[in-house]
Amino acid sequence: MGTTTGTATETARAHSRKHVERFKHELFEMLRIPSLSGDPAHKGDVKRMAEWLADHLRGLNLQKVAVMPTPGHPVVYGEWMGAPGKPTVLVYGHYDVVPAAKEDGWDTPPFEPTVKDGKVYARGSTDDKGQLFIHVKALESYLESSGSAPVNVKFLLEGEEEISSPNLAPFIREHLDLVKADLCVVSDSAMGSIDQPAVLHSLRGMTYIEIEIQGPSSDLHSGLWGGAAHNPALALVEILSKLYNPDNTVAVPGFYDDVVELTAEERKMIAKTDLSEAAYKKATGVPGVWGDKRFTIRERLSARPTLEINGIWGGWAGPGPKTIVPSKAGAKVSCRLVSNQDPHKIYELLESRIAALAPPGVKVNVKLVNVGQPALFPFDSPVMQAAARAYEKGWGKMPLFTRGGGSIPIVADIADIMDIPVVMMGYGLEDDGLHSPNEHYSLEMFQRGIETAIVYLDELAQLKQVS
Amino acid sequence: MGTTTGTATETARAHSRKHVERFKHELFEMLRIPSLSGDPAHKGDVKRMAEWLADHLRGLNLQKVAVMPTPGHPVVYGEWMGAPGKPTVLVYGHYDVVPAAKEDGWDTPPFEPTVKDGKVYARGSTDDKGQLFIHVKALESYLESSGSAPVNVKFLLEGEEEISSPNLAPFIREHLDLVKADLCVVSDSAMGSIDQPAVLHSLRGMTYIEIEIQGPSSDLHSGLWGGAAHNPALALVEILSKLYNPDNTVAVPGFYDDVVELTAEERKMIAKTDLSEAAYKKATGVPGVWGDKRFTIRERLSARPTLEINGIWGGWAGPGPKTIVPSKAGAKVSCRLVSNQDPHKIYELLESRIAALAPPGVKVNVKLVNVGQPALFPFDSPVMQAAARAYEKGWGKMPLFTRGGGSIPIVADIADIMDIPVVMMGYGLEDDGLHSPNEHYSLEMFQRGIETAIVYLDELAQLKQVS
Repeated sequence: MGTTTGTATETARAHSRKHVERFKHELFEMLRIPSLSGDPAHKGDVKRMAEWLADHLRGLNLQKVAVMPTPGHPVVYGEWMGAPGKPTVLVYGHYDVVPAAKEDGWDTPPFEPTVKDGKVYARGSTDDKGQLFIHVKALESYLESSGSAPVNVKFLLEGEEEISSPNLAPFIREHLDLVKADLCVVSDSAMGSIDQPAVLHSLRGMTYIEIEIQGPSSDLHSGLWGGAAHNPALALVEILSKLYNPDNTVAVPGFYDDVVELTAEERKMIAKTDLSEAAYKKATGVPGVWGDKRFTIRERLSARPTLEINGIWGGWAGPGPKTIVPSKAGAKVSCRLVSNQDPHKIYELLESRIAALAPPGVKVNVKLVNVGQPALFPFDSPVMQAAARAYEKGWGKMPLFTRGGGSIPIVADIADIMDIPVVMMGYGLEDDGLHSPNEHYSLEMFQRGIETAIVYLDELAQLKQVS
Repeated sequence: MGTTTGTATETARAHSRKHVERFKHELFEMLRIPSLSGDPAHKGDVKRMAEWLADHLRGLNLQKVAVMPTPGHPVVYGEWMGAPGKPTVLVYGHYDVVPAAKEDGWDTPPFEPTVKDGKVYARGSTDDKGQLFIHVKALESYLESSGSAPVNVKFLLEGEEEISSPNLAPFIREHLDLVKADLCVVSDSAMGSIDQPAVLHSLRGMTYIEIEIQGPSSDLHSGLWGGAAHNPALALVEILSKLYNPDNTVAVPGFYDDVVELTAEERKMIAKTDLSEAAYKKATGVPGVWGDKRFTIRERLSARPTLEINGIWGGWAGPGPKTIVPSKAGAKVSCRLVSNQDPHKIYELLESRIAALAPPGVKVNVKLVNVGQPALFPFDSPVMQAAARAYEKGWGKMPLFTRGGGSIPIVADIADIMDIPVVMMGYGLEDDGLHSPNEHYSLEMFQRGIETAIVYLDELAQLKQVS
C-alpha cells in the first residue's frame, strides 16, 4: 500500500490499453449529457452530469466522493489518499460545456457522439470531458490492476468553467483543508500536433475596461452646432491613439514596470514554436505583421503584455449619411498581462493615463469590467520536469514548455489561494474546434494521454521534493 | 399692367390683413395632407398635395400652372408674367414633409392642425408649407386687390426636399428656359426671435466620406493572436486622430487653401449674432467650448469649415467583455465647407491624407458618400439690400445678414445652374421643432411674412439692376 514500482506502472499501462474500448464508451456516456452551464433550461442536465461523475468515481472505490453544492452548479469532489508520505495531486477539470445545436453547422448531432476517422465528434469531447476523464482512467488503471496508486489523487471537477467559474475560488477558500495538495494538474488545453506534446507553463492575465466619452447632452446637428463642440468620437480617438507609442509599445507610464523579463533559456524554448511572418499572415489574414519588433511573433503572442481595442462605437453606424456631432462615444479596451503585472495596478495606471489625456470639452468615464491574474510557473521545477519525463516515457516524445497567450483565471486562483504549482498538460489538438460546430477529440490522444497520466503519477512519486 | 406703386403695395398689404383668416384655413388644408416623400405608402398623398397646390395656383389666375413629372415626386410649377420689363422672381419651396406619428410624442395629431397660443401645430407647418405659402398669398394679395403684381413671379415647388432633392437639379437643367429668372427667393429657414429677422447669405457645403479598415479576415481571439496584428480599431483611431492639429484646425494639407477669408465688415455682421461660451454650453450641454480659437463661436459654427466624425464602429459594442481583435473598424466623417472650397477637391485631399496615414498592417478603404456645394452671396448686392428694406418696411425691423452653418445643396445648385443670386428669407423660428414632434409655426410670423413678401416684390420692382 502506498508504494508503487515501475512494474505497477507498466501493469497499469497494460490495463489501460486492454480496457480502452470500455473507457471510450464510458466517455461517450458523458458526452450524451448536454451539461450546458449557461442555459437555465439545462440545469437538470448539469446536475445529472455531476451525479454521473460522482457515481463513476464511487465505482472506482475512492475513499471519499461528494457532489458539493455551490451558489451555482455543484462541484464534484473525490479523493484516493492511499499513499501516505507521497505527494498529493489535485486534478482540476470541468464537466460543463458551451451550447451546441445541429443547425449551427454540425454534421452529426452534437450530443450523440459519433466516431469518424479515429475521432469522436461531440460537444465537450475535447473541452473538457475527454481531457478530465484521462485522469480518472489513469487512477482507475492503477487501482484495478494493483489495488493502489503511487501518489494520492484528489479530483476537483466543476460545472461552471464555461461561465467564468464564478463560484470556484470561494469554494476553494472555504474547503482549503479538503482540497489541500502539493500540485494541481489541469488538462484543458491543446498541442499543435500529436507528435509534439506541450506543457503550458504560463498564462496571460487581464484588465478589461470600458471608456465612455460624453460630449453634448444629445446628438447635435453638425451644421448648426459643429465647430465649437469637441466631438466625443474625436476625443475618444485622440485618447486611444495615445495609448500606443510609435514603436508599438503601450504608452501607459509604468505599464511594463513589473514585467518579468524573458531569460535567454526561455527565449530559446519559445523559439521552438515561433511563427514566421508568412505563417502568421496566413493564419490570420492580416496584410502585414505588427507589434514590438524587439520580440519574436510567438513572444508577442504569449510572453508580452498587450493592449487591444476590443470594440469602439459612437454616433451613426447605419447605412447612408447622418450629419451629427454624436452625444457619446465609447470603447472596450483590454490588456493581456504577464507575470508579475497586477491587473488592479494596471487598471489604476490606465485610469490615470486616460484621465491625463481627457480634454476639457468632454466628460470621460472609465469603468473596470473585469480582471484576471497572470500565471507563470518555472519549467525547471521538479513537477514540471517530472511532466517532461512522463511525456517522454508515456507519450514517446519530450514536450515543449510553452506559454499560453490566453487567460484561464482559475489557474492563477488555484496557484495563489493554495500556493502550489499548476501543471497544464493539455491533451487536445489546436484544431479540435472547441466552442465551434463539429468539436471533436482524437481517440488516439485519449489513449496516449491516459498512459502519460499514469506515468506522471509514478514520476511524481519518485520526487524527493515537489516544489 | 406691369407697374406698381406704393399705393398698390399698401392695398395688397391691407388685402392680406383682411383675408388672413381665410389664408390660415387654406394653410390648414395643406397641413392635413400627409405628404411624406420618403414613404412609398404616402405616394398618393404627395400627388394629392401637388394637385391641391396646382389647383390653388390656378384659382389665382396664374397664366401657366402645371404638375410636372420627375422620376420621383412631381414638381408644381406656376407663373405670373404680367410685368414685362420688370425682374422675374423664382420662388422655391417644398411641399413634402418628414414622417410624424402621434406616438412619437405629439400632443395633438400631426396631420390635424391645432391652434394653441397663436401657433399652429402640425407636421410641415414651418417646414415648409407655412413658409412657401407666404409667397403664394403675397402674389394673391396683389392680384386680387389691384389685378397685377410689381414683378414677374414663378413658383418652383418640389416634393422631394426631405429626401435630398434627387431630381430637382436635373429638372432645372431640363427646363432652364421655363424657370429662367433674375433671382430666387427661398423661405425655408428660421430666425432667432420674432423681433430680429434674418436673411441667410451663405450656407456651408459638404463632403461626406466613409472609411473602412480591414485587418484580420475574421475577429481574432486576443489571447491567442493579439500582439502581432495591427488592431483595425487602433489603426482607425490613429488615422482619425491625425486629421486634427493640436490647435483644433483640420490637419489635411490644402484643406483651407480655397477658403474665402472673412472681411472686417462680415466679422462685424457675424458678431451681432455671436454666442457666449455660456450660451453655447447651455444650448448643447457640452462641458466646455472647443474649436479654432482665432474665430468667434458664431464664426466657427457658420463661416469656417469643419471636419466631424459622425459615426465610428468596430468590434464588440454589446454588454460585457469580448476579448477579440476585431476584423474591421470604420467611421463616417463629414466636412462642412465654405466658399470657395470644392467638395470634390476636398474629397481628394482627404483621400490622399488618409492614404498617407494608412499603416501597412491593415487595408484602408475610403469611399465618397455625398457632396454639396457651399454657397455665398454678398449681402451688399441689390437683391439683398432690397430684402433688408422689405423687412424694415414690412416686418418693422432691419434684418441681420447671417451665415447658415447647415447645407441646403439645392440653393447652391440653383445659383450655379441658373447663375442667379438666391435670397434666403426664412420665416420660421429656431424653436419651431422642425423634424421633431409638435412642430409648430407662429401665425403672427405667417402674417408678417406675407406683408414682408408683398413689400419685397415692390422693392425688387424699383431696382435699376438686379445683380
